[in-house]
Amino acid sequence: MRKFLDEDFLLTTDMSRHLYHTYAEKMPIIDYHCHLSPKEIAENKQFENVGDLFLGGDHYKWRGMSACGYDNEFIRTSSDYDRFMAYAKAMPMMMGNPLYHWTHLELKRVFGIEEPLSEKTAQMTWDKANAMLSTPEFRAKGIIQRFHVKLICTTDDPVDSLEAHRQIAEDGDFQTRVLPAFRPDKAVNCNREGFAAYIETLSRAAGVKISTVDDVLAALENRLDFFHANGARISDHGLDTLPAAVQPDLEKAQRALQAGLRGEAVNAEDLDHYRVLVLTALGRMYAQRGWVQQYHMNALRNVNTPMFRRFGPDTGFDTVNDTQIAHRLASLLNAQEIAGGLPKTILYTLNPSDNYTLAAMAGCFQGGTPGKIQVGSGWWFCDQLHGMEEQMRSLASIGIFSKFVGMLTDSRSFVSYPRHEYFRRLVCDIIGKWVENGEYPADEQALSTIVRGICFENARDYFGIPLKG
Amino acid sequence: MRKFLDEDFLLTTDMSRHLYHTYAEKMPIIDYHCHLSPKEIAENKQFENVGDLFLGGDHYKWRGMSACGYDNEFIRTSSDYDRFMAYAKAMPMMMGNPLYHWTHLELKRVFGIEEPLSEKTAQMTWDKANAMLSTPEFRAKGIIQRFHVKLICTTDDPVDSLEAHRQIAEDGDFQTRVLPAFRPDKAVNCNREGFAAYIETLSRAAGVKISTVDDVLAALENRLDFFHANGARISDHGLDTLPAAVQPDLEKAQRALQAGLRGEAVNAEDLDHYRVLVLTALGRMYAQRGWVQQYHMNALRNVNTPMFRRFGPDTGFDTVNDTQIAHRLASLLNAQEIAGGLPKTILYTLNPSDNYTLAAMAGCFQGGTPGKIQVGSGWWFCDQLHGMEEQMRSLASIGIFSKFVGMLTDSRSFVSYPRHEYFRRLVCDIIGKWVENGEYPADEQALSTIVRGICFENARDYFGIPLKG
Amino acid sequence: MRKFLDEDFLLTTDMSRHLYHTYAEKMPIIDYHCHLSPKEIAENKQFENVGDLFLGGDHYKWRGMSACGYDNEFIRTSSDYDRFMAYAKAMPMMMGNPLYHWTHLELKRVFGIEEPLSEKTAQMTWDKANAMLSTPEFRAKGIIQRFHVKLICTTDDPVDSLEAHRQIAEDGDFQTRVLPAFRPDKAVNCNREGFAAYIETLSRAAGVKISTVDDVLAALENRLDFFHANGARISDHGLDTLPAAVQPDLEKAQRALQAGLRGEAVNAEDLDHYRVLVLTALGRMYAQRGWVQQYHMNALRNVNTPMFRRFGPDTGFDTVNDTQIAHRLASLLNAQEIAGGLPKTILYTLNPSDNYTLAAMAGCFQGGTPGKIQVGSGWWFCDQLHGMEEQMRSLASIGIFSKFVGMLTDSRSFVSYPRHEYFRRLVCDIIGKWVENGEYPADEQALSTIVRGICFENARDYFGIPLKG
Repeated sequence: MRKFLDEDFLLTTDMSRHLYHTYAEKMPIIDYHCHLSPKEIAENKQFENVGDLFLGGDHYKWRGMSACGYDNEFIRTSSDYDRFMAYAKAMPMMMGNPLYHWTHLELKRVFGIEEPLSEKTAQMTWDKANAMLSTPEFRAKGIIQRFHVKLICTTDDPVDSLEAHRQIAEDGDFQTRVLPAFRPDKAVNCNREGFAAYIETLSRAAGVKISTVDDVLAALENRLDFFHANGARISDHGLDTLPAAVQPDLEKAQRALQAGLRGEAVNAEDLDHYRVLVLTALGRMYAQRGWVQQYHMNALRNVNTPMFRRFGPDTGFDTVNDTQIAHRLASLLNAQEIAGGLPKTILYTLNPSDNYTLAAMAGCFQGGTPGKIQVGSGWWFCDQLHGMEEQMRSLASIGIFSKFVGMLTDSRSFVSYPRHEYFRRLVCDIIGKWVENGEYPADEQALSTIVRGICFENARDYFGIPLKG
Repeated sequence: MRKFLDEDFLLTTDMSRHLYHTYAEKMPIIDYHCHLSPKEIAENKQFENVGDLFLGGDHYKWRGMSACGYDNEFIRTSSDYDRFMAYAKAMPMMMGNPLYHWTHLELKRVFGIEEPLSEKTAQMTWDKANAMLSTPEFRAKGIIQRFHVKLICTTDDPVDSLEAHRQIAEDGDFQTRVLPAFRPDKAVNCNREGFAAYIETLSRAAGVKISTVDDVLAALENRLDFFHANGARISDHGLDTLPAAVQPDLEKAQRALQAGLRGEAVNAEDLDHYRVLVLTALGRMYAQRGWVQQYHMNALRNVNTPMFRRFGPDTGFDTVNDTQIAHRLASLLNAQEIAGGLPKTILYTLNPSDNYTLAAMAGCFQGGTPGKIQVGSGWWFCDQLHGMEEQMRSLASIGIFSKFVGMLTDSRSFVSYPRHEYFRRLVCDIIGKWVENGEYPADEQALSTIVRGICFENARDYFGIPLKG
Repeated sequence: MRKFLDEDFLLTTDMSRHLYHTYAEKMPIIDYHCHLSPKEIAENKQFENVGDLFLGGDHYKWRGMSACGYDNEFIRTSSDYDRFMAYAKAMPMMMGNPLYHWTHLELKRVFGIEEPLSEKTAQMTWDKANAMLSTPEFRAKGIIQRFHVKLICTTDDPVDSLEAHRQIAEDGDFQTRVLPAFRPDKAVNCNREGFAAYIETLSRAAGVKISTVDDVLAALENRLDFFHANGARISDHGLDTLPAAVQPDLEKAQRALQAGLRGEAVNAEDLDHYRVLVLTALGRMYAQRGWVQQYHMNALRNVNTPMFRRFGPDTGFDTVNDTQIAHRLASLLNAQEIAGGLPKTILYTLNPSDNYTLAAMAGCFQGGTPGKIQVGSGWWFCDQLHGMEEQMRSLASIGIFSKFVGMLTDSRSFVSYPRHEYFRRLVCDIIGKWVENGEYPADEQALSTIVRGICFENARDYFGIPLKG
């Protein structure tokens, strides 16, 4: 029997262990997509306690607690201490859930705490972790540096001033680059509440008067250039549902925009034309600048109305959608290809039934750049052992695994970097098993190239962003 | 090489074997959803022979035989002896199918027969099993008690008199509680043939004149209370397809009802409104009484018209559907949450591509009760080794496995209780492997709590139905 | 650690190795569906070099190269030498992709080359393979005979003269039967470009004037009989999308045909009626003659317009679709059952999320012939280790695996027969593991029957085509 979470955690063959400890373990981290607050990094946030750090905004943990029977109000509003104690008590019941592994990796790698968290160890954990959190080394930047993070890309609205990012950049001692990423969802979804007000803000930020679709695009391009000047090379789109496969008609798109600006209901067909038109134009802008665009698909958000009214968005009431994506996605990527060249693109789905669809789709738009079209690592509900394995298995089976740009945290937490370790262990285990089973030769040079690639070097080369140190 | 079906069947690690033999094996059974005939239990049915017992109404076995090349007419209409012999001959060809394991577990656990069934052993098996079936210990109640079944919930129409259930309850020697479950499908599907006649029966049973939707609900509530008084705490809904995500409009629902009552075609949109309205109202009634509702989704029934005309429903001509369920299911559960509180709910799908959809959906409506929203164990075509493993893997990966209420037979057969054994072996094997691999600590107390929970105690606590003995 | 690609490749248990080396390895091959050119067989094609042989028309390899970063123009238009060198250089990066295993099996089994292909071994491989290709034993027929192929079914248009097939049949020394298969897609898709011209060709080939749907059917039946007289017993349909579940209306079908003949846009609903009507009639014709029909579903083709314009169809720009198939497929099969009997049918999907849907669907139309309705082996993107395993797992779990007709290459390449070896290794490994784990008895007779069945004998009996030798 293997000891829980020992140094060879998840590494089941000799070759897996060799590859992990020789190559993967030592690589720095590129976290190319997350939801950390740049302001908290700039301020070098000090955490009040481990409850704040672990449970402050982590809806994964909140959902785990509610499935254990805790009340939603308690989970989201009680004191840091009370909910940390409750979480600790529930921990042993979270067997098999990624929270179980993540929490223990976080305790071990951040605080050196080895004892499994439970009701019995809760107070000890609370005291020990809090003592460390009160020291300067455990402020936000210290935690980041502890994990050898070379690059963090946050998620930012086009109207953002990027003030926090500029402030971070001025800190010459901080060896981590923190760059913005461009997330123009609010400009794309002209049917959402608050669109008109948002467009006013965008108009001011860009210095562009907006009354037509071309104006929207001009304003977005202006902000894109501003982001570019501040180091951004990545965009991100939340495409909960994809627009229908239409040849975009400018007149219909204009009609959608006008309705949105007046705060009226937007005709569904017009909306599709607007969205395809804007997404295609943005794709062309990204391609021209060598950017990478990310598409996040098949999320269904805020499905529990009473909870949404009480707690707002991003509080644990989102779920997996199961819409058909193949035809619409193919059409959208093709529209960009036709319009002058699809940019580098990463495709994510929340529904693992789409894994083959995405891996095969990527193969239709490759060429010129290694792994130009990527299937993103297991996203959100898929970001766990089996979800990651299935993503990698389908990618390897119908794409080129060795060109995978690998892991990202997609996290709101400063202590989620052990997920990169978790991912690397799985990568090395998969590869090690292939070699042990005679499915790939024990060619050290090829193996080391592939392992280092998936853990770090592919991302470094793919995004092409200069790093420090 | 392991001996076929030995005592450590399916248990691949030391810890798996320890957990199974120490905890799981000894637990009694709660079979909270099945299709046994309460009348046959009340009468303590004696089986004519093992052909009758095994092949009398088991469409799983019929389908297995037809795929082996037997004629459908022969399979469904020949003598018990002839079809038992034919089944025995086909048995070795059913390698890998759950029928292979089920049949041998049934022969071993019910009759102590260890020899694999084949043409060669068919006559011996027939003779030996029949000799035992002619004794009083092998009547219906004897078989049930042999498996330590503490609770059986049958599936019953709201208009049922529950006479058989009352008769069973009067047998003080019978240590198994047999309770009805409320399945109001015929009242929900106002577009189905025979609706008007059914509503008349319902009207008489409830003593409620029915001409409006409110009348339907009043009649159903009356019957619900009658079921409650007879011990029922569970309902069941066959939602082959889900109604569209609508805000229910009473007028449209009334129109659907009126069309149904007149035996006319029901407008599809009106039908959706009727169904959402009735399901929401029923959900509120269940919640008020502390009941559990079960939703069975994505079945496509009676697809072979010539066979349906010849043999009727439930004879082996149903299949897996692949409709999109996320948006509609979220909307239906949300409607109940808004209307005053979703009851405890168990979600089943016939399509394993929905596994993640259901597991993530459950997480959006949890809280207050451990595992309030359950993802049901692998249903029907998914009720086999890989289907159960995939259901448990997805549940563990994005929900809380330890709160799972576990296995049910969903069976029409008196000898299907070994499926609980089969399930428990898989559960212990999954958990044992986690511990052996260092993915969970060897914490005997937590492990025993979880194993006993999933095998018996979670269901006992979740349904809250008092047991005997 | 196992040596790469040794004699026990993919065989992980003693029983797996025993079954493979004792039974599976020695069986001849039936390749009942492929895209080889009968003309090239008739001419006994000599290959210019290994670049021509490996990369001449293999869009799997082209896609692999483009994902590694090669330019699409280079991949498809550079010299045989240049692209073979490029392919060799990329090879080590294709870890985990079926190309890695296929290529090395091809090098080993055809040329006896054991060294893994890479930049370093590229020239040696090129020289050695080319030397062999220049000898008579390595012309098309020699390669085929080297793999003990007993039967090849090509894919042919109903208007084909079958001249090449007759020429092959006249070669008394060639121990492989090469038969045509009937693929009437161009007559079924009356909405596609070129339909009117095609119908004129069909009209001439059949000697039937075509102006009504009945005329189309009469012409197709004429050609079917011609194919039958030339030994064909198999048809094939590319049903990228399935027609809606309609009761076919002749008038609507006629309207679709007329529009198609005039080169006008075909109304979508009319098209569905035309397709259901023609497919149902063809099914009846197949059933009357004892033929097998094959349905290929959920492909999405030519999604990259610039590449399609540059390189045409079947050049690597097709992908997996995710349309709902259950209801439509059930309706189409049922229509044939009602119309007088569904023929033997093989169902293929490009989307593995449909695996359960197909396996359960097959079970609704079985009876009379062992494995009458088959779920085809992993198709195209699913034709790799995990895709095949998942297809077999779902088939075994809800169908009868032992009656599976097994592998086909579906290939355009003369060196893809090692895929049968690959498949057989997986089959023996799956079965061997069941026996080793105690899930099936070590019954040598049953095991050998099943292994020989899936590898060769089931297909021989199912298609009922006389073989040579």
